[in-house]
Amino acid sequence: MELLRHKVISEGIVLGQGVLKVDSFLNHQMDPFLMREVGREFTRRFAGEGVTKVLTIESSGIAPGIMTALELEVPLIFARKQKSLTLTEDIFVEKVYSFTKKESNEITVSKKFIAPGERVLIVDDFLANGEAAFGLARIVEQAGGTVAGIGIVIEKAFQPGNRLLKEAGYRVESLVRIASLDEGVISFVEDEAEPAD
Amino acid sequence: MELLRHKVISEGIVLGQGVLKVDSFLNHQMDPFLMREVGREFTRRFAGEGVTKVLTIESSGIAPGIMTALELEVPLIFARKQKSLTLTEDIFVEKVYSFTKKESNEITVSKKFIAPGERVLIVDDFLANGEAAFGLARIVEQAGGTVAGIGIVIEKAFQPGNRLLKEAGYRVESLVRIASLDEGVISFVEDEAEPAD
Repeated sequence: MELLRHKVISEGIVLGQGVLKVDSFLNHQMDPFLMREVGREFTRRFAGEGVTKVLTIESSGIAPGIMTALELEVPLIFARKQKSLTLTEDIFVEKVYSFTKKESNEITVSKKFIAPGERVLIVDDFLANGEAAFGLARIVEQAGGTVAGIGIVIEKAFQPGNRLLKEAGYRVESLVRIASLDEGVISFVEDEAEPAD
Repeated sequence: MELLRHKVISEGIVLGQGVLKVDSFLNHQMDPFLMREVGREFTRRFAGEGVTKVLTIESSGIAPGIMTALELEVPLIFARKQKSLTLTEDIFVEKVYSFTKKESNEITVSKKFIAPGERVLIVDDFLANGEAAFGLARIVEQAGGTVAGIGIVIEKAFQPGNRLLKEAGYRVESLVRIASLDEGVISFVEDEAEPAD
């Protein structure tokens, strides 16, 4: 997705240890036109999958998620992150470890909102080790639903998330794939046919 | 806004102590068409205010915020909530007390994203005591910007937020105003001319 790649190159800031800061258009300040295009692109890619709901995780997944849901004409659900829980009767709970923040969170979705048989598209802003995507997928499956696909805005292809998710049988579509952030330089995975933007 | 009022009546659940649960279309599952209409309605109401940015707070403000930003053709910023902070050099910080959760959070916005002279529209999902809106307004003013207005999806008009914000000189526009949740019944403030939906 050329527009997104351009944004990553022009505004992304490489911090140490494989961290890419994109807080000017995705993680803190958000570009609504870019988010709409992200939603349209996920819709093009997953149009044939019979998606009944989009599932994301707070907070940075919500904007791409709602735009995708708008284009696909289905509801969005965002999973909540919580440190610890006492009442868990009416919610699905999965533990997700963040390598960036070095902490575990419980992610939760109300049982009301995913019914058996639903086809759920998972959308998230970043894919690195795949922890969040696997946690969301386990919630869909706990509910008796099917993961229709996993749509990622920015993938760190030098981390194993994409490979692990594909090995587990999921269809993963990343709008940009970063091959390396070494020495502060952003380079992309180029060896793929990309749909024209 | 008739569509929203209908959603509140048909799907809102009154819990004890003045709490209205709207997690089927606003706070957990989200209706993307309703969010788009919310964005269009805020844009109609604040079109003449010269808005340069929309500011909201994670997580439930993000969907109405991004739709408003899309219609107004400006960026969205979402303030982050944090329990405590160590490094505060590059961020604006304000303390916000949540009466619902009975806890204080620090809300933060990077100094990069609000410049002196900006006209910032604050958007949030709920208005009760006005704590979050005042915190966001203080951040805008710390940055040397002006609050162009405050757009609220659901106002609890039986709590003092609206009055306090107006007394402080802010323009507040709430899309629905709830007069009372007493005895589990949702009643609206009816004595206002509302723009036709």
